[in-house]
Amino acid sequence: MAKEKTTFNISKEKDFSNWYTEILNKAEVTDMRYGVKGFVVIRPWGAKIIEKMYKIYESALRATGHDPTFFPVVIPEENFKKEASHVEGFSPDVFWLESKQGEERVALRPTSETSMYQMYSMWIRSHRDLPLKIYQRANVFRYETKATRPLIRAREFYWIEAHDCFATRKEAETQVQDDIDMTEAVMHKIFGVPFLPMRRPEWDKFPGAEYTVASDSMLPDGKIIQQPSTHLLNQSFAKAFNVKYIDKKEKEQYVWQTCYGPAISRIMASVISLHGDDNGLILPYTLSPIQVVIIPFHSAKNKDEINDEARRIKNTLFLENIDAEVDDSDKRPGEKFFHWEMKGVPFRIELGENEMKSGKATIFIRDTKQKVSVNLKDLIEEIKDLGAEFDARLIAKADEFFKKRIANCSDKLSIKKALDSGNIARFDFCSADKAGEKCAAYIEKELMARVMGTRADKSEKPKDKCPFCGKKATAVVYAGKSY
Amino acid sequence: MAKEKTTFNISKEKDFSNWYTEILNKAEVTDMRYGVKGFVVIRPWGAKIIEKMYKIYESALRATGHDPTFFPVVIPEENFKKEASHVEGFSPDVFWLESKQGEERVALRPTSETSMYQMYSMWIRSHRDLPLKIYQRANVFRYETKATRPLIRAREFYWIEAHDCFATRKEAETQVQDDIDMTEAVMHKIFGVPFLPMRRPEWDKFPGAEYTVASDSMLPDGKIIQQPSTHLLNQSFAKAFNVKYIDKKEKEQYVWQTCYGPAISRIMASVISLHGDDNGLILPYTLSPIQVVIIPFHSAKNKDEINDEARRIKNTLFLENIDAEVDDSDKRPGEKFFHWEMKGVPFRIELGENEMKSGKATIFIRDTKQKVSVNLKDLIEEIKDLGAEFDARLIAKADEFFKKRIANCSDKLSIKKALDSGNIARFDFCSADKAGEKCAAYIEKELMARVMGTRADKSEKPKDKCPFCGKKATAVVYAGKSY
Repeated sequence: MAKEKTTFNISKEKDFSNWYTEILNKAEVTDMRYGVKGFVVIRPWGAKIIEKMYKIYESALRATGHDPTFFPVVIPEENFKKEASHVEGFSPDVFWLESKQGEERVALRPTSETSMYQMYSMWIRSHRDLPLKIYQRANVFRYETKATRPLIRAREFYWIEAHDCFATRKEAETQVQDDIDMTEAVMHKIFGVPFLPMRRPEWDKFPGAEYTVASDSMLPDGKIIQQPSTHLLNQSFAKAFNVKYIDKKEKEQYVWQTCYGPAISRIMASVISLHGDDNGLILPYTLSPIQVVIIPFHSAKNKDEINDEARRIKNTLFLENIDAEVDDSDKRPGEKFFHWEMKGVPFRIELGENEMKSGKATIFIRDTKQKVSVNLKDLIEEIKDLGAEFDARLIAKADEFFKKRIANCSDKLSIKKALDSGNIARFDFCSADKAGEKCAAYIEKELMARVMGTRADKSEKPKDKCPFCGKKATAVVYAGKSY
Repeated sequence: MAKEKTTFNISKEKDFSNWYTEILNKAEVTDMRYGVKGFVVIRPWGAKIIEKMYKIYESALRATGHDPTFFPVVIPEENFKKEASHVEGFSPDVFWLESKQGEERVALRPTSETSMYQMYSMWIRSHRDLPLKIYQRANVFRYETKATRPLIRAREFYWIEAHDCFATRKEAETQVQDDIDMTEAVMHKIFGVPFLPMRRPEWDKFPGAEYTVASDSMLPDGKIIQQPSTHLLNQSFAKAFNVKYIDKKEKEQYVWQTCYGPAISRIMASVISLHGDDNGLILPYTLSPIQVVIIPFHSAKNKDEINDEARRIKNTLFLENIDAEVDDSDKRPGEKFFHWEMKGVPFRIELGENEMKSGKATIFIRDTKQKVSVNLKDLIEEIKDLGAEFDARLIAKADEFFKKRIANCSDKLSIKKALDSGNIARFDFCSADKAGEKCAAYIEKELMARVMGTRADKSEKPKDKCPFCGKKATAVVYAGKSY
């Protein structure tokens, strides 16, 4: 790996945009020099984080009855055209392959509804085949024409998509709620990324869906980033792809469908942005590829003894499923500290002659930059406790940041002010149905913000008029500047 | 999932080709009805096997100092052209994307040398950056024009590619041997797929490589299937992509490179083909997504008691990292047996009133179809022992099959006879260098077989003349009909 002299002194608070670009580079998460717009290289440290995120997310999906699957990366043009609003919504985004002689034109999947559901129509016969709950770990491709940002707005992203079929609408609606709960359990409570579950307005739902609930999170610059969304597809795709089952009364019925899409690379962008500081990444303990780095300090005399102890500690931690590494390179201690702080490793154990004599290790804690001394014989328990506290602290800090950024507004001026200072504006609005599209377009054009929709997790009643058209408000909406 | 009435009575020995197609379908490994030539759907059971294979292979790579990474799926046309013999070798196989206005033409990766090495030239500066050992789990795409076979000859495959850089030729050559050793340790000793490490003749090496060692295995019909190959790239790509380092004497040097590519989906084809029988799949114990299926037999009276015990056993096994599942569906016992035998699950525990009373469980063993009775209190140990024996049996059987299929031949007639009866022919040959290409072409045309090359694991001295051109033989080669 490159050993260029690294310096890092961009303030996240004052210059998030450059901080973000720089940290991805310096912490060797991605490399932006690949040379094709919207495609970046994920370097080993980034790949290890992504792998841990996949592992956690896939376990959660399996635990809730989803089976893995792998569908082809290409989708025939004909499939694509089957669901009218879907093809309309996605067509501008699609990469097509150069046609091969005598073969049908195929697209690189931007999402896999039209790939999967033709197979579902062959797999599902009777009510005993339901529910069908399937996911795939896959890369998807969208032809992004705007400026791209690594991991945030890209042309290739690393994601999971779950596509479920049910016998009844009620079960499908329950699944939509289960998806939101999974975003909460995994993205918020493990990765430390808070969000608002927003039911998208009618004009901004997923192409082909009856409704969409997206998880809107925020980056440090106050911009909204859309994280996993879940969609009630109702029966529109089932009708387009003929996905039917025979019910208990021997009657043929269309299935009810949902889909859910956590984009792992995009969630990683939030994890990096929310938790990092001006010294580099800060990774949640649960997520960090290396949770504990052990740095031996030794002279020529006690080198073997101290290195042996470092390795013994590493192995002890390993047996308890704690990922540890010994940095016995010939770098200076300061360089090592700098390196592992940049990578965001939660704990650094410093192990020298003093520690050997006293039977105590000094642990440096990445986020608070404090050092604690612990008995080596209690190390496992201490690390586990410190790890739980570490993650709780990151979550609390991210929550605190997010909570403060929601501003109750009542008129155009306060909305503009909120948005311009990097907040989410909450206000009464004419309508989240078709009727509100005009005011939303005004907001997009004049305030450069997006109406995110209405809260999916609670019912909020408007009291006032819409500040834009003056009509009686029928919804409380949230708006924000958006990535 | 589809619950069509399943029958399976195609003889693997008599009709391997149909047996293979049928078993992929009936065991729900793949679905061939996707509708795009060379692209199949991997169904949940297949996906779970692939995931286990990736996990094992990636662990082996990490344990030997390889770091994971993810490179973009697209490669700019310009990169592709940089290594002359590489572009010549791969161009006919490439899928190109329809060009977007003002943007360079890009290909879907058929393999990633030309994607990765431009980045290596930026990452490597000094001898301290070496060795660089990187792999990626990725799908690659090749425009196969011949008839495709699911998992065997496809247009999309699930693979791993490792790309390493070294300071010296010697280290690179050692890596080639390490790659062969990894194929032996993982593919042979864990997955049960025996192979011959063959140094490919000069005319059949990887485009851009100095030499190629491929692992040739055999399918039950006697045809050769190429499994992981490893390549000494020497410095040809390093020169094309300017991958240099400053050595200890401050002198600039090109790196020495190797690459290694285990195609997981193709190895799965071998696993399925070699171990399966006329009742379905037989999966190695280490590889099976479900290692033990527990089938409770109960009446209305003791239903709860027996189901509770089944779940207790499952949990006990789970804590010992043994993947178990209770089949408490309302299918008839016969259907359940049939189902799990088809899926290839190594062990079935039958648990009924007798077993509860005696404290003994009956275990059905998938490959031998024998039943053994074990004390429930010794279950963990018994399963572990039986599992080790199970895998040893599969490996021994596959080895036995393979060993018998190598025939020593001395003239055209015996070679033809060996090949026509599904064997590998071993014979003295004019040359594995350029000079032998003409005789190899004759063999390909007249005998419809491929000269696989010379043994990489031992030195074999020819004694005779080449049976095709009559010149003095300089190599002992192996040839076989090939997929």
